[in-house]
Amino acid sequence: MSASPWVRCVALPAPTLRNNTADADRLVAALSQALPASAGAIDLDLDLLRQLPALLRRSDYRLRCTLFGDRGRWILTGISGTDDARPAAGLAVDLGTTRVVLRLIDLATGASLAEHAFDNPQAAVGPDVLTRIHHAESPDGLLHLNALIIDGLNLAIRALCLSAGLQPPDICAVSVAGNTCMTHLFMGLDPRWIIREPYIPVVNRPGVLKAADLGIEAGPFARVRVFPNIGSYFGGDLIAGILYSGLHRGGATAILVDVGTNAEVVLGNRDWLIGCAGAAGPALESGVTRMGMLAGPGVVDRVAIDTATGRFDVHTIEESPPRGICGSGVIDLAAQLFLSGMIDIRGKLVAAACGERLKVVDGLRHLVVVPAEQSASGEDLTISQADLDSLIRSKAAMYTILETLAMTVGVGLGELSRFYVAGTFGCFINPRSAIAIGMLPDLPLERYVPIGNSSLEGAALALTSADAVDEIDCIRDRITYLELNVNQDFMNRFSAAKFLPHTDAARFPSVNAK
Amino acid sequence: MSASPWVRCVALPAPTLRNNTADADRLVAALSQALPASAGAIDLDLDLLRQLPALLRRSDYRLRCTLFGDRGRWILTGISGTDDARPAAGLAVDLGTTRVVLRLIDLATGASLAEHAFDNPQAAVGPDVLTRIHHAESPDGLLHLNALIIDGLNLAIRALCLSAGLQPPDICAVSVAGNTCMTHLFMGLDPRWIIREPYIPVVNRPGVLKAADLGIEAGPFARVRVFPNIGSYFGGDLIAGILYSGLHRGGATAILVDVGTNAEVVLGNRDWLIGCAGAAGPALESGVTRMGMLAGPGVVDRVAIDTATGRFDVHTIEESPPRGICGSGVIDLAAQLFLSGMIDIRGKLVAAACGERLKVVDGLRHLVVVPAEQSASGEDLTISQADLDSLIRSKAAMYTILETLAMTVGVGLGELSRFYVAGTFGCFINPRSAIAIGMLPDLPLERYVPIGNSSLEGAALALTSADAVDEIDCIRDRITYLELNVNQDFMNRFSAAKFLPHTDAARFPSVNAK
Repeated sequence: MSASPWVRCVALPAPTLRNNTADADRLVAALSQALPASAGAIDLDLDLLRQLPALLRRSDYRLRCTLFGDRGRWILTGISGTDDARPAAGLAVDLGTTRVVLRLIDLATGASLAEHAFDNPQAAVGPDVLTRIHHAESPDGLLHLNALIIDGLNLAIRALCLSAGLQPPDICAVSVAGNTCMTHLFMGLDPRWIIREPYIPVVNRPGVLKAADLGIEAGPFARVRVFPNIGSYFGGDLIAGILYSGLHRGGATAILVDVGTNAEVVLGNRDWLIGCAGAAGPALESGVTRMGMLAGPGVVDRVAIDTATGRFDVHTIEESPPRGICGSGVIDLAAQLFLSGMIDIRGKLVAAACGERLKVVDGLRHLVVVPAEQSASGEDLTISQADLDSLIRSKAAMYTILETLAMTVGVGLGELSRFYVAGTFGCFINPRSAIAIGMLPDLPLERYVPIGNSSLEGAALALTSADAVDEIDCIRDRITYLELNVNQDFMNRFSAAKFLPHTDAARFPSVNAK
Repeated sequence: MSASPWVRCVALPAPTLRNNTADADRLVAALSQALPASAGAIDLDLDLLRQLPALLRRSDYRLRCTLFGDRGRWILTGISGTDDARPAAGLAVDLGTTRVVLRLIDLATGASLAEHAFDNPQAAVGPDVLTRIHHAESPDGLLHLNALIIDGLNLAIRALCLSAGLQPPDICAVSVAGNTCMTHLFMGLDPRWIIREPYIPVVNRPGVLKAADLGIEAGPFARVRVFPNIGSYFGGDLIAGILYSGLHRGGATAILVDVGTNAEVVLGNRDWLIGCAGAAGPALESGVTRMGMLAGPGVVDRVAIDTATGRFDVHTIEESPPRGICGSGVIDLAAQLFLSGMIDIRGKLVAAACGERLKVVDGLRHLVVVPAEQSASGEDLTISQADLDSLIRSKAAMYTILETLAMTVGVGLGELSRFYVAGTFGCFINPRSAIAIGMLPDLPLERYVPIGNSSLEGAALALTSADAVDEIDCIRDRITYLELNVNQDFMNRFSAAKFLPHTDAARFPSVNAK
């Protein structure tokens, strides 16, 4: 991460009778010299002008200035004497539906000063976007949702600043990436048309706003850059992810998959980008998490089955007694069950292979993953046939979305130079397992690149890279959004993908089931 | 006055699945088509975005939009349905040290809706710039002065709107021209360095501000354009005057003289502009008004003396009984006294010619202009030798400033194609009288063009002309400011100009004294 080009220390020539231009014009002239020749106008807020004469003279005309780029012009968002020991701070925000993550950054060095995460307080209204939008339509519902997230952010900002020895007014620049609904609620914009045909957001390019206008506790001149969205179902979080992955700069075609509350996929290179959101077909994440739980101590995150002995080797987070299973654990488990012959190519439990691990509860087959005597609860930890069927549908939907997107532009999935996987999903799944069940294509493993919270990383880049700001608009304008048309062809491909790893096993040469 | 190019009625295509861009982006696209191809980005305030979805759907996507240009980008400052019967209004303000004049304008047609003037309430603190700046340095002094003018403007805005059947929120655009100190106090900027060497304003190009940030009662998205200044002694009122006169567009060299609280002069054409402010030498206006009074009923504004009979023909405003004499009356009087031989070429009263009109009071010679029996007060209305001496110094200063400016660029005063005279001074003086005493050069009378309150007219142009906004910056950047150097050469020219009409009578061939 490079140092920000937006913190500039300037020494102004002191006024004389021969050089008696105004204070503001003197400052702007010095800053213009310190910026690239192509830089445009530099804007100063009225309240900054009000403080300027005293500040200039107190600091002997030596100033540290923080600038914020906005489409060819610059805004002065922070100013102090060069002897100010406190860093000019920036705040990057990943505004998730479930979880909100903040990072405080020293704008001069690009260094991370502190991170903080909290559950989106709007979850008290409803866990998903749909419930919140309906709530926003009730009297004062939008104000309520807006206040929840703004208050939550301000609490987090105070905590972050405290841990870094700073104060909220030290923050000069904020960068926010979230999905279309979350950014609308953040800005207090009516989201009701997002979920109604023809699915219209209030704004696609929110651009740069004053932190004070949004109610965000930061410096008096601080600005907030809200990442643009492509439409109702393709948000700024994914634009931030593309920015961070570098997909839009690559010579070879690559893909980015972000499985959060929605499954979003972008394919492309420096010449073109095409994206779609996984609203079509069963949502992957619900299939993965329905039977399990979010990662935490005692949650099964890795499973291995000895194909010779049938012995289960179950790993839990913090190696605590097993109490549930998370997404990556389920994918591992399914892959191991398939490779050891305990489920067949349709994902059905094979009685002969499962032996005494197979139990029938309420007429439904279950496989015991952790027997009662080893589990945290003292009860069997099982996976049901219904859970497995759900996983199969989810993995088939994922693969079909990838296949459809690639087909649309005539690219074979095998040609992908990189496969970026974002989010916690990307960090924890074992790509070998995901390939084994045919969820992800059978690429050499080194092409799989987990990129973590790419929404947060992209938001941070927008604060620390001179190029990033221009790239954001460029990415936004270059993406073709593919509306996934769930027609007969799509359903045929989906059906073919419901086998393990696929009806066309030749697509997965590395997968050898027992 | 042409209709504003900034009110645009647009009909947006209704959203469909094939055209499902966001509300704001839909509006911006339609406005971009309605604007010249070269128009840049269009900015929407956050609060406007918050109202947009409901407004669009309520108005069936037919909107009247008011735009405000700001250095290559546009700001949407007003929006309503196309069926809105109330005009989108603009407010032009001439922010004078003594008097403030406002004009309400229909932005769609450019028509004037109402005018209103009031005495600058800061006069309660002090009549002149210097006193007010000293007051601004006292605790809360700046806040006090700022509140006085903002409150005064808001009262005037309410009165103006009432008389035009509008309300303050109907105002979308405001344009303010004033001298450097007045605009500083209007913006709440510390003026203390304006009057101290090396005379530094806080800002020369205030640009575009939010009306709400300034405390001005207007529409929620309204913007205020504050005219730029050249320096501490050359303000935005004169830039507005140049804009209105068209001096900066002329092929032939012309001159603009504005005698208000300060005497300011600009000389130039479409290729160059040079200006100076009459801070050097005795101020003309004080010389003219010290012995007299401001225009009003009973004030002598025109004087004629029959050279054959010596009879005085005195005209008063509203033809009421004489009670004083104003600037134009004094210049008329001095010219007539000179032409009839009652004062000599040094401006001294000639006893033989004055006859019984000459009286000595407290050892000082006075000339009776209106005898006691004809005056309003029942006492003689007189002009003293000291008053005449003061007028001579003032007219000499005025002429010397004009001569010095012209000499600097090698232009003869006789070459001037137009002589624009701004302000009430310009409206009421008789150029023939001003020439007779050598205050203004001996040009053919048709070249003298009184242009009234050119500060107000320029401010209005900035609201109604598409070109004016670019021209303002262009004028500002092109003016060379001449610091009047009161050296021996200047004093020699000043001494030569202290004769009537001038030591070098050949410069005034049209003047034939008795």
